Amino acid sequence: MRAGNLQLDTYGRLKHFLAIEGLSRSLLIQILDNAERFAPLGDRAVKKVPLLRGKTVANLFFEPSTRTRTTFDLAAKRLSADVLNLNIEASSTKKGESLADTLRNLEAMQCDMFVVRHQTSGAADFIARQVAPHISVINGGDGRHEHPTQAMLDVFTIRRLKQRFDRLKVAIVGDVAHSRVARSEIHALRILGVPEIRVVGPKTLIPPAIEAMGVQAFHTLEAGIKGVDVVMMLRLQQERMQSALLPSAHEYFREYGLTPARLKLAHKYAIVMHPGPINRGVEIDSAVADGVQSVILQQVTYGIAVRMAVMAMVMGTQALSGSDVDSH
Amino acid sequence: MRAGNLQLDTYGRLKHFLAIEGLSRSLLIQILDNAERFAPLGDRAVKKVPLLRGKTVANLFFEPSTRTRTTFDLAAKRLSADVLNLNIEASSTKKGESLADTLRNLEAMQCDMFVVRHQTSGAADFIARQVAPHISVINGGDGRHEHPTQAMLDVFTIRRLKQRFDRLKVAIVGDVAHSRVARSEIHALRILGVPEIRVVGPKTLIPPAIEAMGVQAFHTLEAGIKGVDVVMMLRLQQERMQSALLPSAHEYFREYGLTPARLKLAHKYAIVMHPGPINRGVEIDSAVADGVQSVILQQVTYGIAVRMAVMAMVMGTQALSGSDVDSH
Amino acid sequence: MRAGNLQLDTYGRLKHFLAIEGLSRSLLIQILDNAERFAPLGDRAVKKVPLLRGKTVANLFFEPSTRTRTTFDLAAKRLSADVLNLNIEASSTKKGESLADTLRNLEAMQCDMFVVRHQTSGAADFIARQVAPHISVINGGDGRHEHPTQAMLDVFTIRRLKQRFDRLKVAIVGDVAHSRVARSEIHALRILGVPEIRVVGPKTLIPPAIEAMGVQAFHTLEAGIKGVDVVMMLRLQQERMQSALLPSAHEYFREYGLTPARLKLAHKYAIVMHPGPINRGVEIDSAVADGVQSVILQQVTYGIAVRMAVMAMVMGTQALSGSDVDSH
Repeated sequence: MRAGNLQLDTYGRLKHFLAIEGLSRSLLIQILDNAERFAPLGDRAVKKVPLLRGKTVANLFFEPSTRTRTTFDLAAKRLSADVLNLNIEASSTKKGESLADTLRNLEAMQCDMFVVRHQTSGAADFIARQVAPHISVINGGDGRHEHPTQAMLDVFTIRRLKQRFDRLKVAIVGDVAHSRVARSEIHALRILGVPEIRVVGPKTLIPPAIEAMGVQAFHTLEAGIKGVDVVMMLRLQQERMQSALLPSAHEYFREYGLTPARLKLAHKYAIVMHPGPINRGVEIDSAVADGVQSVILQQVTYGIAVRMAVMAMVMGTQALSGSDVDSH
Repeated sequence: MRAGNLQLDTYGRLKHFLAIEGLSRSLLIQILDNAERFAPLGDRAVKKVPLLRGKTVANLFFEPSTRTRTTFDLAAKRLSADVLNLNIEASSTKKGESLADTLRNLEAMQCDMFVVRHQTSGAADFIARQVAPHISVINGGDGRHEHPTQAMLDVFTIRRLKQRFDRLKVAIVGDVAHSRVARSEIHALRILGVPEIRVVGPKTLIPPAIEAMGVQAFHTLEAGIKGVDVVMMLRLQQERMQSALLPSAHEYFREYGLTPARLKLAHKYAIVMHPGPINRGVEIDSAVADGVQSVILQQVTYGIAVRMAVMAMVMGTQALSGSDVDSH
Repeated sequence: MRAGNLQLDTYGRLKHFLAIEGLSRSLLIQILDNAERFAPLGDRAVKKVPLLRGKTVANLFFEPSTRTRTTFDLAAKRLSADVLNLNIEASSTKKGESLADTLRNLEAMQCDMFVVRHQTSGAADFIARQVAPHISVINGGDGRHEHPTQAMLDVFTIRRLKQRFDRLKVAIVGDVAHSRVARSEIHALRILGVPEIRVVGPKTLIPPAIEAMGVQAFHTLEAGIKGVDVVMMLRLQQERMQSALLPSAHEYFREYGLTPARLKLAHKYAIVMHPGPINRGVEIDSAVADGVQSVILQQVTYGIAVRMAVMAMVMGTQALSGSDVDSH
């Protein structure tokens, strides 16, 4: 899948946002820098800018999601766009319409942007290849492939708290094998020059060939997080807990749950991240999730700024100067 | 049902939009001309005008619909109205409230417009007779009665592509007997002076007395579309395919499916229309639906301009000059 | 539960709106006076003011509701806020997230206000104690505890129609025992100085210790409404009709249904109120619900003005002068 090219226009500008893989360091930095301009908005009395006024954003969620859809919805509204929230499964497929026909119709309604979440890897790419030239597609998570806005908000959070990437040790802990979040994070961290990326989890949840991605695999949490600056926890999916890949949630917590005692093995000022929603007592202890090293809620806050930045960029209306964000 | 009068105020202006039947040619032309003013908006960077700012539009859908509700929703938002999307069945009826009480309450909330879709013929008229004087009602499809905004977007599409109505031959193909779309289309085409209107379908799906509406009935597709300028396909409803009125979907396609070969019997420059969602391989072949003669997606695009025009007109705020649409 | 203090800031201004109990007379009057400023808006061509522009209101409804949610939604939109409508049960709890984590996340998304409806008494207080300092919580009904905006719109309606509170006789009729509406109404009427408050209903639906709230209990409708200026009917919940507490809906109507004949026992100019949705022929006869003494639909209209006033006040942006409401 050569998403790297598909998502850029002929001038190298972001047209779609489908995957971290294949993007340049300078483009990721540009997204982070634009997000910095949007971050202060959330603290203002008026949290809106008119950058996407008169644009129509369609949220196409084929897979249920509250958090991701809500933050994209908020990001679009704070950019003054009109938002259509479509629950695709519940609607058009009832009348037996194909996905392609649904897309054609939304294009004909002159939507400007599709935010897509789908259970199938490659769905966002597929849609980006199909859509009319005036439409931009943002991947809100596709199967086990990528979840690029999540990775960007993660690295935004890291940059805010650690300033630079070039001396960091980062551990990604959990079900790496089935995680689009982990894949996107690994790509983002590598592109941004993080020298040491570790993945940590039981052998059943770490892909055998993962080291080809430039990461080191660890199978005990203690060894995996030793000395790291950033611990990125993954959510253990319900279905995994019920599968043969894991003995039980309780057992998982005993081996891989992030407790205060284990966190002491990381760097003294290590930060703890999680894409949410968290499973307390499964992958993370409440004392850690709510502790001083946790930046989980900052991730949520920054997620809106990052999504605003990406939405503005793919529409060709990123804030070029402070005054674009200031004027309202 | 004398909807023709009910929907006009004492000055002959559109107050509700319930049915095509009974409207004058000049009023239909006025709707088309207003829609022409809104059509270019969709290509602008800012697809909004402030004509209905501060108005509240309630979408009352008693029957599920994605496309129609979405286009009304978009049309209202692009007019800057606030929109309430109410799924009536799921909500108030749970608590056992009557329709009349639901309407009284929405009026008391100072809604300005109801867009109504209902499975019962006459429901929109019934509601228009009930509502307070300040409220306008738009029929988004009632039983087998009418679907007037669909017919208006159809004739808008025809005028755009064929310029004039007075020499056209038009065939409406499919389940005419159960179709509110067909009824509204026939009225609109007659009022606008189309000299030859044909309905085409198996005898079980063509009402026996249809010729009283000023149309000719044909029972083979070949004869029915021979030489026509416009082929208006109807959607074959799922329930019809399972009923005794038809042998099977496959059989239907063999007899009445619009294929490239059959389309050759129509005029060389004939256009193919469909209200959507299309059943590929049932009433229409994909090669036709996606072919150069198909204007199905243009219908969707024009549908928004037509609905904006009707919504603005019933609110007494139609764009009188280009500058009303220009100012934003 | 000392909600009285929890909902005020250190300067005695409304920070949350959780319960009528514990609020001062002057604060209730201030809410009513602010609502008076918003009431004329509904009749204007543009029913919007920019007081909450750029604010985000999240409607958190853990219990289904059409009317209350719709009026809060409209009130927020008419204040120009952005609204998130979250059906909490259907969403985050699917992924097993706790209520506290859902709230933390909505805070991190920089929502400014939560409107909460919950089946558990005390839920709104609980949430108000939990949320970050920048968030205001409005109780949209919690269990059998309170429904304070309903009570405020009721007393707003009474003040509009009866001008003053200090000589009124008011009867609250129906299932007082299970009604949060009745509790809030009793508190509001007492605080505003209504000298005679009666509750009327079968013994099974009137709490034995109700007189401690400063009201008189009556067990026949005839005695209860004799000479009163205001009859506040309660909705008989479906579940009550099916329970052992009542013989049948028919029987209830025979004993406690408000008919024109019974209403004659009240003061000649008595008004009849109901929070809706009404059960025609159960607690109220249609001739009364639709009669000249009924102010039920005015309650709905005033409800929007009252909710706008409360939302603006908790955000610290109440209209201080007529010009704030005028400017749009």
